[in-house]
Formats: sequence, C-alpha cells, structure tokens
Amino acid sequence: MKDVKAFVFDVFGTLVDWRSGVAREAAQFLQRHGRGADEADAFADAWRGLYQPAMEKIRKGERPFVRLDVLHRENLEQVLPVFGIDRQRVPALELDELNLAWHRLDPWPDTVQGLSRLKSRHIIAPLSNGNIRLMIDMAKHGSLPWDAILGAEVAQAYKPSPDAYLRTADVLALPPQSVCMVAAHNSDLAAAQKCGFRTAFIARPREHGPAQTSDLRAEGQWDWIAEDLVDLAARFGV
Amino acid sequence: MKDVKAFVFDVFGTLVDWRSGVAREAAQFLQRHGRGADEADAFADAWRGLYQPAMEKIRKGERPFVRLDVLHRENLEQVLPVFGIDRQRVPALELDELNLAWHRLDPWPDTVQGLSRLKSRHIIAPLSNGNIRLMIDMAKHGSLPWDAILGAEVAQAYKPSPDAYLRTADVLALPPQSVCMVAAHNSDLAAAQKCGFRTAFIARPREHGPAQTSDLRAEGQWDWIAEDLVDLAARFGV
Repeated sequence: MKDVKAFVFDVFGTLVDWRSGVAREAAQFLQRHGRGADEADAFADAWRGLYQPAMEKIRKGERPFVRLDVLHRENLEQVLPVFGIDRQRVPALELDELNLAWHRLDPWPDTVQGLSRLKSRHIIAPLSNGNIRLMIDMAKHGSLPWDAILGAEVAQAYKPSPDAYLRTADVLALPPQSVCMVAAHNSDLAAAQKCGFRTAFIARPREHGPAQTSDLRAEGQWDWIAEDLVDLAARFGV
Repeated sequence: MKDVKAFVFDVFGTLVDWRSGVAREAAQFLQRHGRGADEADAFADAWRGLYQPAMEKIRKGERPFVRLDVLHRENLEQVLPVFGIDRQRVPALELDELNLAWHRLDPWPDTVQGLSRLKSRHIIAPLSNGNIRLMIDMAKHGSLPWDAILGAEVAQAYKPSPDAYLRTADVLALPPQSVCMVAAHNSDLAAAQKCGFRTAFIARPREHGPAQTSDLRAEGQWDWIAEDLVDLAARFGV
C-alpha cells in the first residue's frame, strides 16, 4: 500500500451517475420535440451505446484522435432519428447545449469525501476517456478536488488502449506499479493491470439503472475491492 | 471582462519564488560539497540561466520535446563545475533529489488567495513551461487550487512558441480572446497577445533578488495591470 503514490479514476459510472444526469436533460429536450419524458432513460442508454463504437475507430487507427466532446456530439445526431426526431429541425446550438449534459453529471454520494481523503496523502487524477474541458466542468459542477486532469486527451489514446494507461504513468513520472486504477468496470481494471497498474474495484450496481446485469461484482484478481470510495480511503488509512 | 472564461498563469516568478526556494536547497547541497552557503543565490541564478537555452533547442526543432524535469537535471550537471564541484563525485540520487527543489517552491504571499478567488467564477490553470508532475507537486506543496494542469507538457511546446498558447486554448475549448494570460514577464504576455489572448501583468520586482532590473513594470498594451493576484481578482469582482 505504501507504494501507491497516485490513484487514477474511471469517471463515467465510477464517480458520477451519467445515466440519471443525461436523462434529466434529455427529458426536457424530448418534451420540447414532442416526445415523452418517459423515454429519457432509453435516450441516455442509446446515446451511451454509441460511445464504445465511436472510440473503437480511433483505437484501431481508422481515425485520428478527437476529443470525446466531438464523439458525443456526432453520436447525439445519430440518436435523434431513433427517437423520431429530425435532426435537421433542431438548431445546432440546442444540440451543442444538450451535448454539455455530460459536463454536468452529479457525483455518487461517497465520491467527493472519498477523493478528498485519498488526496490528503496521494496524487488523485481522472484517467477517463472524457476530455480535459469536460473533466474541468464536471469537477467545478460536482466539487471533485483533482490534483490534475489526466486521461485520454493528455495521452491522446482511449482506454482500454495500453497507451492510455502507460502515458498517464509516464506523465506522473511513476512506475505503473505505483499507480492504482480505480474503476467500477472489470474490463478497465483488466487493461490497467496488464500495463502493470495496481487495481481497485468498486461496484456501482445502479450505473445502468435497476436492471443492471454487468459489473455487479469483482471478476478479476484486483488488489483492492472496496464498498465505495470512502471505504477505499479507509483501507489506505486516510 | 465578462468574456474571460479562463485565467492561465505563468508560474516560475509570477506565482512562486523560485530563486529563494532553489537557493534554500542549494545552500545545503553546497555545504555538503565543501562550498559556502553564501554561494546559493548565485547557484540558483546560474541554474536558471541555462533554462532558456535548453528550451530553445526544442523550440527550434533541434531536439524533440522533453519535459522540464529532464532539462533541469541536465542543466544541474552543467552548473556543478562552475561551482568547483566534480559531478562524477556526486551520487546521481543526490542530484535527482536536488532537482526536485523546483517542485517545492513557495508561493508569493498573495498567490493562494488570488487564485482561490479567481477560481470561484473562472477556470484557472498553469500555462507554465514546468511539466505536469512538477506542477502537481508544487500545487500540493503550496496549496495552489488548480482546476487543471495545463502548459508545455500538455501542449508539447515551450513558451513563447505560439503552439504553447494556442493548444492550451484549444484544450480549454475556448477562443483565445476568452483566455487571459497572467504573467510577471512582458515577453510572455507579448507572445500570448500575438496569439489573441487577453493579458494581465503583475510586477514581481524581487523575482531575481534585490538587484532586479527587468520586468519592473508593464512594457506593453496589456488588458490589465494589477498590483498582485488579489488585486487582479478584485478587478474581476471576485
């Protein structure tokens, strides 16, 4: 434990409730365009569903790196017709504004206290696929006390590409074994572990709503499995 | 003023007192190696004197980008013989440790309050030639409340190259005129202004010690000239 100098965090799902946050803003949007607010959860899920395929083109080298705000905006235009909305009839500025819903997500109840305690003796930074400005806005919205904003845009690589992890450790001037990846997603931890990172799992069983079936428990040999971020901090004596 | 969304800051000299901080640690080092502590200010000046030439090779494209910690470490080895110290007789780990003096510089008295007030309504980030880990350590040492760590390592370019400024605005997803560069150095502000940034000057007449002759006053058409960071915050009503 003494060797962990920095904690780096997955953000969407692990630290913030993206589904409720996006659905909250989507509900108003849907109603403005003649749809029901009851479709908001499905809208959030459909929008998020295009997240991995969009990044995959960049991971495969089929497209140069662009920040997540750009991918979210493109994906939003793809989602509209699924909900019967003609994207040609929605002003671009209104879509730009809805796209910022990802910048205004609320933290889970334990997030701020857990991060603050871990920060007292360690470096803490996001290692998210979210871009720098998105992470800045989210931190100001939710009082996330980051030491630095790291992640995909600094590394110019999307998780789970090894470069996303290895370049983050390099920027921190730390060997991978001195960096602990914290995530609610087993796949993220598996990729980090392959790069030599230490790993900590926290279940977020409501990330995908009440019917969630994935990532309900740790599925790998993670270094720490904690109830939440406050529990993780306690295990490190902070 | 309403249009300024982010303040970005020069750090060495503008926010922290690099000369006293480096001299403090150099004094102990010099005494361990048979020299006088009274040489510490000259040692700090000589070490800093190699800063611009080292970056210049990278600005000119004669060398790929490397972070400032690397340049500081190389420059340290060059400074030793000037003070009669045989670098072959100093353990590498001792030089590594002295190199971290740049990570432990103290802020000027107004820095933390000024940054905290500006942060309440704006994004604040360093736009320093210092690398990310250096800035993280310095922020933890001096309680600098950054929203993000930006600057040379994120931009992969050293000031005053235009890319250092323009890529920082791009990462912030802001037009240059919505970003205000704050510095105690007229040359830094001139370069930022050429890139379209707003500019704020704060004199730090003791940065180079009691005999300082440069940057004692504003020498350009800067948007704001303030007494210190607290005064700058007051001008923005925060």
